[in-house]
Amino acid sequence: MGHPKGKLIAIGGAEDKGSDLEKGEIHRNNLNFFELGILNRIVQESGGPAAKIEVITTASTIPYEVGENYLNAFGKIGCLDINVMHIRHRSDALEEENIERIKACRTVMFSGGNQLRLSSIFGGTEMLQILHNRYRTEEGFIIAGTSAGAMAMSKTMIYEGNATRAHLKGEVKITTGLGFMENVIIDSHFEKRGRFGRLAQAVATNPSCIGIGLGEDTGMLITGGNKMEAIGSGCVIIIDGHDIRYSNIADIPDGNPYSIDNLKVHICEKGNGYLVQERQFLPEASEGSVIRKQVSVE
Amino acid sequence: MGHPKGKLIAIGGAEDKGSDLEKGEIHRNNLNFFELGILNRIVQESGGPAAKIEVITTASTIPYEVGENYLNAFGKIGCLDINVMHIRHRSDALEEENIERIKACRTVMFSGGNQLRLSSIFGGTEMLQILHNRYRTEEGFIIAGTSAGAMAMSKTMIYEGNATRAHLKGEVKITTGLGFMENVIIDSHFEKRGRFGRLAQAVATNPSCIGIGLGEDTGMLITGGNKMEAIGSGCVIIIDGHDIRYSNIADIPDGNPYSIDNLKVHICEKGNGYLVQERQFLPEASEGSVIRKQVSVE
Repeated sequence: MGHPKGKLIAIGGAEDKGSDLEKGEIHRNNLNFFELGILNRIVQESGGPAAKIEVITTASTIPYEVGENYLNAFGKIGCLDINVMHIRHRSDALEEENIERIKACRTVMFSGGNQLRLSSIFGGTEMLQILHNRYRTEEGFIIAGTSAGAMAMSKTMIYEGNATRAHLKGEVKITTGLGFMENVIIDSHFEKRGRFGRLAQAVATNPSCIGIGLGEDTGMLITGGNKMEAIGSGCVIIIDGHDIRYSNIADIPDGNPYSIDNLKVHICEKGNGYLVQERQFLPEASEGSVIRKQVSVE
Repeated sequence: MGHPKGKLIAIGGAEDKGSDLEKGEIHRNNLNFFELGILNRIVQESGGPAAKIEVITTASTIPYEVGENYLNAFGKIGCLDINVMHIRHRSDALEEENIERIKACRTVMFSGGNQLRLSSIFGGTEMLQILHNRYRTEEGFIIAGTSAGAMAMSKTMIYEGNATRAHLKGEVKITTGLGFMENVIIDSHFEKRGRFGRLAQAVATNPSCIGIGLGEDTGMLITGGNKMEAIGSGCVIIIDGHDIRYSNIADIPDGNPYSIDNLKVHICEKGNGYLVQERQFLPEASEGSVIRKQVSVE
């Protein structure tokens, strides 16, 4: 198979198009998330403001408001070819016009909302297959996603898990996501919602996966399906369960608290990174940094 | 100096006498915390329901409600000699009658509230010196504390740090606590309030200290100033910074996100434990467990 040539940009959410909006909290004016650099980075990675970008609002239950917010936000930073795809049902995903649009764009951006809507609507469709093929073979093809849109990127996906009960076995629910990346589990809104316990449980039950906890206004740019670079204003928490020495999680009934000896945890800020395969923290992950570093060594 | 002969019982809070009450959320009926075992354990470690216990409400700004709740809760489990000490100012701590009570009791229990009230009112007083002496020299002397009362037990004490800003350098404020234990930093309400980032920052800036994150309705029974046994229904998260390989925290200005490579994290549930000095997770920490284990080995 080789390494995928495209890039993923997984974002932890912020003004939270999707779930907070779904709770009736509409932050129409809170677009500072977009002004602070992450959206700019998506546009830059897409080749500039002329790039054809498709915003996919499927995860959200209020797609029109969400779509409009993205149009405004991308518009603000000068983008010229932003389009919104309202795929609400599996039948929409099968429509030829939508499939053509997925073939023609440079970048797709999955909004927030409910990640189960993404996996259940796109799972097994030709559209998802096209996304996979393009991601594997086309340099410069970008799949971005925020909140639920980020969580659905991996093969192993958390779809439920209340922070206050996440220390109990069985309270963190896992299923199969869109599968652009294996061997990771991505969580979002990591700081504000107190999700350490839920990602730790997901890692304890799937120790071959690295947990990626994305803070608000924070993301990971993933190249070659392996190298992650932190972007945005917050932190990314990496949880590595490969060296767990003891855990009771296989031996206790559901509803009981779990225990783990020896998780490795890393905290990345902008410019730091992580190699998933090598399980290695990178103090300087951006291309520029690497070049600077080489020059200073010589 | 030798190991202290007394025991500490640090509890993460639950119905949160103190801070939630201070926000006007009075949970008069929510005493299940007390019925679920932790309070029973305090009484058991104190030698039974006849033990003289002094509840110290100093951390709280609504001491009378808090005191009454403790009287009710200890009363419910059959305690016969529960007393409440309303030490509001340093002058109260100096009063001979209060000093005599501290000398005469078997157990003190610090309520929740604001841990800075504890350190600023008791710091440097004869009463604190008596507590230290008794804890060091008297087998069976118990110092218990919940929420702020637990956080104040260590020498290095977090007194402020909003979860949503705890990934930024300088947002986690540290001072000196009551100092019953060195080389740890205790945090409370660990799961509900999303405090992983704040304890991680405290550990990154104080890497000789082990971070102890107590969940709600969860505590650590600490013997010999070193061995911890998890009690209660939730989890305790241990953060060990001794093996940090990289951190930017010394090099960035306040307000910037910090990064850390290689924290070790352990998650303890009831019966698990941890040796602070040896930095070692214990699958079975209770005395009974150890005996069972030895028997099964023979």
